[in-house]
Amino acid sequence: MAMTLARHLPILDWGARYDRATFTSDLMAGVVVTIMLIPQSLAYATLAGLPPQMGLYASIAPLIAYAIFGTSRAMAVGPVAVVSLMTASAASRIAAPGSPLYIHAALALALMSGVMMLAMGLLRMGALAKLLSNPVVNGFTMASSVIIAASQIGPLIGVTTSGQTLSVIGRTFVGHFASFNPRTAILGLGALAFLFWVRKGLKPLLLALGLKDPAAGLVAKAGPVLAITATTLAVRVFGLSAVGVATVGRVPTGLPPWTPPPAAGPVWLQMAPPALFISIIGFVSSISVAQALAAKRRQRIEPSQELVGLGVANIASALTGGFPITGGFARSVVNFDAGAETPAAGAITAVGLAVAAVAFTPLLYFLPIATLSATIIVAVLSLVDFRELAWVWRYSKRDFAAMAATMILTVTVGVEVGLGAGVVLSILLYLQRSSQPHAAIVGQVPGTQHFRNVDRLDVITSPEVLTLRIDESLSFTNAQWLEGKVLEAIVDQPTVRHVVLMCSAVNHIDSSALESLVALTRALTEAGVTLHLSEVKGVVMDPLRRSSLMESLTGRVFLTQYDAFRTLAPGVCDSRAPELAENIAGDGI
Amino acid sequence: MAMTLARHLPILDWGARYDRATFTSDLMAGVVVTIMLIPQSLAYATLAGLPPQMGLYASIAPLIAYAIFGTSRAMAVGPVAVVSLMTASAASRIAAPGSPLYIHAALALALMSGVMMLAMGLLRMGALAKLLSNPVVNGFTMASSVIIAASQIGPLIGVTTSGQTLSVIGRTFVGHFASFNPRTAILGLGALAFLFWVRKGLKPLLLALGLKDPAAGLVAKAGPVLAITATTLAVRVFGLSAVGVATVGRVPTGLPPWTPPPAAGPVWLQMAPPALFISIIGFVSSISVAQALAAKRRQRIEPSQELVGLGVANIASALTGGFPITGGFARSVVNFDAGAETPAAGAITAVGLAVAAVAFTPLLYFLPIATLSATIIVAVLSLVDFRELAWVWRYSKRDFAAMAATMILTVTVGVEVGLGAGVVLSILLYLQRSSQPHAAIVGQVPGTQHFRNVDRLDVITSPEVLTLRIDESLSFTNAQWLEGKVLEAIVDQPTVRHVVLMCSAVNHIDSSALESLVALTRALTEAGVTLHLSEVKGVVMDPLRRSSLMESLTGRVFLTQYDAFRTLAPGVCDSRAPELAENIAGDGI
Repeated sequence: MAMTLARHLPILDWGARYDRATFTSDLMAGVVVTIMLIPQSLAYATLAGLPPQMGLYASIAPLIAYAIFGTSRAMAVGPVAVVSLMTASAASRIAAPGSPLYIHAALALALMSGVMMLAMGLLRMGALAKLLSNPVVNGFTMASSVIIAASQIGPLIGVTTSGQTLSVIGRTFVGHFASFNPRTAILGLGALAFLFWVRKGLKPLLLALGLKDPAAGLVAKAGPVLAITATTLAVRVFGLSAVGVATVGRVPTGLPPWTPPPAAGPVWLQMAPPALFISIIGFVSSISVAQALAAKRRQRIEPSQELVGLGVANIASALTGGFPITGGFARSVVNFDAGAETPAAGAITAVGLAVAAVAFTPLLYFLPIATLSATIIVAVLSLVDFRELAWVWRYSKRDFAAMAATMILTVTVGVEVGLGAGVVLSILLYLQRSSQPHAAIVGQVPGTQHFRNVDRLDVITSPEVLTLRIDESLSFTNAQWLEGKVLEAIVDQPTVRHVVLMCSAVNHIDSSALESLVALTRALTEAGVTLHLSEVKGVVMDPLRRSSLMESLTGRVFLTQYDAFRTLAPGVCDSRAPELAENIAGDGI
Repeated sequence: MAMTLARHLPILDWGARYDRATFTSDLMAGVVVTIMLIPQSLAYATLAGLPPQMGLYASIAPLIAYAIFGTSRAMAVGPVAVVSLMTASAASRIAAPGSPLYIHAALALALMSGVMMLAMGLLRMGALAKLLSNPVVNGFTMASSVIIAASQIGPLIGVTTSGQTLSVIGRTFVGHFASFNPRTAILGLGALAFLFWVRKGLKPLLLALGLKDPAAGLVAKAGPVLAITATTLAVRVFGLSAVGVATVGRVPTGLPPWTPPPAAGPVWLQMAPPALFISIIGFVSSISVAQALAAKRRQRIEPSQELVGLGVANIASALTGGFPITGGFARSVVNFDAGAETPAAGAITAVGLAVAAVAFTPLLYFLPIATLSATIIVAVLSLVDFRELAWVWRYSKRDFAAMAATMILTVTVGVEVGLGAGVVLSILLYLQRSSQPHAAIVGQVPGTQHFRNVDRLDVITSPEVLTLRIDESLSFTNAQWLEGKVLEAIVDQPTVRHVVLMCSAVNHIDSSALESLVALTRALTEAGVTLHLSEVKGVVMDPLRRSSLMESLTGRVFLTQYDAFRTLAPGVCDSRAPELAENIAGDGI
């Protein structure tokens, strides 16, 4: 019972052993992530088309909820770029960004995706996330990053843009180009250049100045805070907001407000499909970060409990004026590198953000929107790596097709269509692959009991015995293929009296394939040919024993292919090979 | 060129060798099928909610088109029960049965499903049909048959019913029960009893009367014609149509009318999804009949060309006042048994139907609708075999789930939802199976080079070398599973220094699984463990050589598992086994 409770409340596990040393580590990590998360939470709220304080709200209660229910020790949750884009895409379909209905939609998305994650976690349906292949997730992330970066070019130079596809963003950019503001552009491009330099140049500089390595890396992460401080001061000192430089403006001061879930309405129905997409993408990107970090310390991640943690965190976000959140890659790595040992680091970050929400919001009045855009651009461009495209192309054309389709549709049509099409396409390509399996006619390698492809090696075959090695499990996707393949083979070789299907690589046979095998048996019988099986695995043989195939099978099931060949073609088989087969007990390979 | 043309026009192939003997065989079969098809074509048109002559029209031009373009020698195409039900289901969604708009919808369905089949055939996309597993197709066919039989109970006794789900049919049956007509019921139930007797009792009787076997069987197929003649005469002689027995009434006399495709309109858009379902179900049921019959004579069926044949046949149906058609199981078997040797038998049937359309339609005036209902009930009940449910349940719970869901949803919600849900569910179950593969820790069987499951046999293992045999191809569905499995295994066995993945049953590795393997390599390296592969097949190894795995792999790729064990655990490995591995050239198993 205690075990079960700890499984559902991981805090009971690590909390019981919490000590001062762990706290010191967690405190350090919590502070570093706070400094990193303040500008990010403001920026991603803006990206989602929401008031900046919602970014702060989404980084307080959810972090505490995740600290209690999450399994990853180093995961830092909060608003992330891709999910913010998806939120904007879904909410802007029913309302104008920033309007009450729009905010209502964002809250609904957080609540529904939270409930969906929680339900999937409790029902142990984390496996649904497996429908997303890496090429689809990576293609989607890259395409989303490109859209996000493009959407921020306008704000960076004072031009208002809108939309979540490249063409809409481009069109509004051209349409509003008259609002171009040179002062905004100087601030924005300056911040952008500074942030890019911070990524590459600040750490080496700090090292040269005598700072030690982990510290130098962590201080460098404060770059965005530096950019924000400098540009905010510039606006304040030079009175730039009076001459057209857009700023964040008044941000309400105080802790996140209790936001009871709004009454059911048409908004809920409209937001359900995007909420599902958000929960799946949120989970998939989060779990991969969590697993990568856990592996480094030989810790375990329980995917279903991870869904529970993220689900409760999103529900907490919705109830405290936030929007959909998930585990962030960059901030989790920072958290890990800064020494986070338990989810308490996240709770400390939450406290930091709460302090910011209570005390620092007036300071944000003169913060230029352009600086937030620069922060976003630098963050998302780190997710784009076109070398990914190159190696996937080299490795698998099929996977590349799924990736390219996802990217193109995401950029041109939208995030949901792109992601949905990618999932469907990768499943279809997967089925297509299994529907066109590899199979080889094999013969005996002289002097051994091994059987190999007749096309690759000089092997012993019999004109009367045809052995086909099937390199795929048999299922409805390829049931007809096998039938066709065998029937063609006996048409090509009319002397054949026995067909042996060598099943060493067959991991399961479904009922469609079973019917096809029964039909094949009949067809072969009518053609005067006997069908045998060899090297059938135990897990495959067990259900076959209960099936009608055993009644209609005219031939035998041989333990090994060598047994089959020696029995069916005694005159041809090379029996010099030692009688290994006799030594082996058990059934199947 | 000639070869290519013959591939697209199979008539050129068999037509060139056509002779008098073949014609005699085809003529016999053509006549038998004509006699069988006249009542069926009228009945299925009624089932589809269309005027009876449309059934005749759908059995003339399409048969000629199929004779030219189809590849099956014995296939008899025309209206079939399930496709007629699907036509009724789709068309009745936008119009009242029999209305001009309804007929327009039926023509649109035939044209669109024809164009879709033709396109799939020309693009060699017949593989799409593989998305339908046998449990789904069989479940759908059985459920449709139950609906069809239920829908004909009313007309059988004079009660008008409507709808394509059991609840609607039942409700209208109760609502219209006042129209119950005892005379109709006597005719209908009499015809039904006679037809059931014909199936079981007529052939033995004919044999007892001295008829030889194939002839007796074929004459027995004329049962429906006998029932039609007898009941029509009864209506005529006793003046039953004046006392409420519904009859076919006036059927226009003449050849099928040229029906140009109607202009594009909203109907087309609404009929597109059902047309896709019809083309897929039509193709799947047709191809399985064609393959079964072809196998008996060692002939080949080209699925893509079969799609072309059925596509052109459906287009021909739409252009000559017909509705969607496909290959029928019962009539194709009759055609085959009656000796059909080429598709010319189908053309002869078409001529027979054309003669009927020109000369016999006045005779149909007094044909009772109840007799047609009896014909339909007897025909569809032969498709229902609940033993199918029993064996699928015994063999595979997964397949049974797909079958049961298809049946329940088809009967309760409708044909398209049922079929769609069945397809989606069987794909999800398929992915789920591959996402939870079987894997075994293996050890050396003493005195051999074989490696078996440590749980099944007493085998040699080393505390430092862990060998995992993976019984599934690696893909995005199970990429994370493998990573988790290996990492858990080394957590359980802390002495492990080498992990060997035995890949004899791995038939492909996609890029998601590749990334996972690379991540696994890194995680193992950080844990001080080396990762090796063994028995990687040639087809899997080729792309791996081009991948980043080869750079990050800390261990080796061994040709055989025995090589791996002997190299990594020389002190433990039983080397008495003969050195077979050395004799084998080539790469992979």
